[in-house]
Amino acid sequence: MPPINRQVLLKSRPAGIPQAENFELAEAAIPEPGDKQFLVRNEFLSVEPAMRGWVSAVANYATPVGIGEVMRSFTAGTVVKSRHPGFAEGDKVMGMLGWQDYAVSDGSNITRKVMETGLPLSLSLGVLGLNGVTAYFGLLDLGMPRPGDTVVVSTAAGSVGSAVGQIAKLMGCRTIGITGGATKVKLCTDAFGYDTAIDYKSGDLDAALKAACPRGVDVYFDNTAGAISDAVIKQIATGARIVICGTASLSSWDPWPMGPRVERHILVKRARMSGLLIFDYAHRYEEAVGRLAQWIRDGKLAYREDIVDGIEHAPGAIAELYRGENLGKRLIRLSSE
Amino acid sequence: MPPINRQVLLKSRPAGIPQAENFELAEAAIPEPGDKQFLVRNEFLSVEPAMRGWVSAVANYATPVGIGEVMRSFTAGTVVKSRHPGFAEGDKVMGMLGWQDYAVSDGSNITRKVMETGLPLSLSLGVLGLNGVTAYFGLLDLGMPRPGDTVVVSTAAGSVGSAVGQIAKLMGCRTIGITGGATKVKLCTDAFGYDTAIDYKSGDLDAALKAACPRGVDVYFDNTAGAISDAVIKQIATGARIVICGTASLSSWDPWPMGPRVERHILVKRARMSGLLIFDYAHRYEEAVGRLAQWIRDGKLAYREDIVDGIEHAPGAIAELYRGENLGKRLIRLSSE
Repeated sequence: MPPINRQVLLKSRPAGIPQAENFELAEAAIPEPGDKQFLVRNEFLSVEPAMRGWVSAVANYATPVGIGEVMRSFTAGTVVKSRHPGFAEGDKVMGMLGWQDYAVSDGSNITRKVMETGLPLSLSLGVLGLNGVTAYFGLLDLGMPRPGDTVVVSTAAGSVGSAVGQIAKLMGCRTIGITGGATKVKLCTDAFGYDTAIDYKSGDLDAALKAACPRGVDVYFDNTAGAISDAVIKQIATGARIVICGTASLSSWDPWPMGPRVERHILVKRARMSGLLIFDYAHRYEEAVGRLAQWIRDGKLAYREDIVDGIEHAPGAIAELYRGENLGKRLIRLSSE
Repeated sequence: MPPINRQVLLKSRPAGIPQAENFELAEAAIPEPGDKQFLVRNEFLSVEPAMRGWVSAVANYATPVGIGEVMRSFTAGTVVKSRHPGFAEGDKVMGMLGWQDYAVSDGSNITRKVMETGLPLSLSLGVLGLNGVTAYFGLLDLGMPRPGDTVVVSTAAGSVGSAVGQIAKLMGCRTIGITGGATKVKLCTDAFGYDTAIDYKSGDLDAALKAACPRGVDVYFDNTAGAISDAVIKQIATGARIVICGTASLSSWDPWPMGPRVERHILVKRARMSGLLIFDYAHRYEEAVGRLAQWIRDGKLAYREDIVDGIEHAPGAIAELYRGENLGKRLIRLSSE
């Protein structure tokens, strides 16, 4: 086990996408758990688009990470010392323990104990973590797909999008994935079962969408906002459901970015646009994780991980995500030496 | 009764708001009803913002009115001759009979028989017509107000908005009306019972909204889109419902107008934006009309009419509506001579 606690601290507040230089590596003593506390050794650190919001000073759903504080992050690890009656040494946990080797917890920042047998711990940060759970509730509760619906997913090969596409297929929908580049297009059709995959970086997105969705788009699961959404909204069918899950394509919200106005499309098509924040579904995580884990065991739900070794890769990892460099859920694996 | 059938025909397709010169007056013979048909003499012609869409060639929910055709319009009138078993001479009807003195119908373009006793026929085109029914279903079915909610209404003194504000008050909500000019502000508070009325033409709308909605906006009933909506969406509360009912402030949808992107607000506030098209509620009109009529009889629902005499005023009436010149539901009353 590492003899010190390596940490990634927020050094400066980014304007837009957080870059490596907004963070710094630091070392601290391994903390001691007090009464009703326990010590977790993190094995995997998560990297996700939402981190942009967590370090932004712009009004948001979460208090921003303070300058000099450990970067907020989901992590998965093992309880290595416990003075808490509910957590025993050896328990696997997933929670908001930050970009660091060790964290002391009283349980309040633990999202869940990881109980899935026979599946890697890393999945608790991806397809069995917030990504899969987001796909599950966003698609089923807000998207309300029906068999025969045409479902369009942006960042279709990503860790949320790939699960959305596959769950929509399980529901009997036609799935159209929008992604960037030939490699991800191939991943969409070969690994994630999309009926059609569209490369937004090549050719005419409007024409490709029109050809793929002759009866219009019934459900649009949106991870990007921006130009991709503008193209999709032109093709929505009457009664369409638009799930706003992320805004990856927009680099800043200050100043407020401009785009084509959606009101007329929403009105004429009697569509519904809903925002999803997965923390609202915390009380139902186990429902989703149970289903998702079973689909994985049954070979019905594929996933990809893109694991990088060493905490020194964390500072640049958010920017890499926004550049679309990863193929699969980006995780940082911490050295066990 | 008029000895000929005066009609208003669409002469040219407007770019944006329809102007008087886009129409022409014409005269035709009074048509004879055939078997299973009846003749209606129109007494009131409606004028409404949606007419812009009906004459536009831009994709819409309705086939555009053809050049040379009678302008599409709701009207209220009396059956004066009938060869139809379901309609008798003397029946009062409301339907899509166009800007003209007379129309033959087989019943398919009749919205409903007007049965409300003791109330003026003209109300069937306003507070007991599509305007009131739109307010009823838009607010209750899509806005889903709860007692204590803060409800903001744009074009708050208009024929839809004024009913929305009053129904929201009946539900125990705090109501904030946005309107233009001192006369309409006074109408909002004195006639329609808004807790606060804001004049968007004077002063700082952002500041006025912030002061009026200290806990944010729970329901926004939107008749305008544009700059007013941009100000309101900045103030929405978590879980807000935005009802898109009209887009009066935007003069054209071709080219697609730009504005601040809504996605981040929808996401962060887990809000829902829904489009309303009242024709989807046709099977439930009587439910709404029955309630609305009772509220009027009980003195709980105030309305304003702005009636102009003579079909020659119809051509310019849509543009007047968009300039906000009317105080109350704008109707054209046809001469009975």
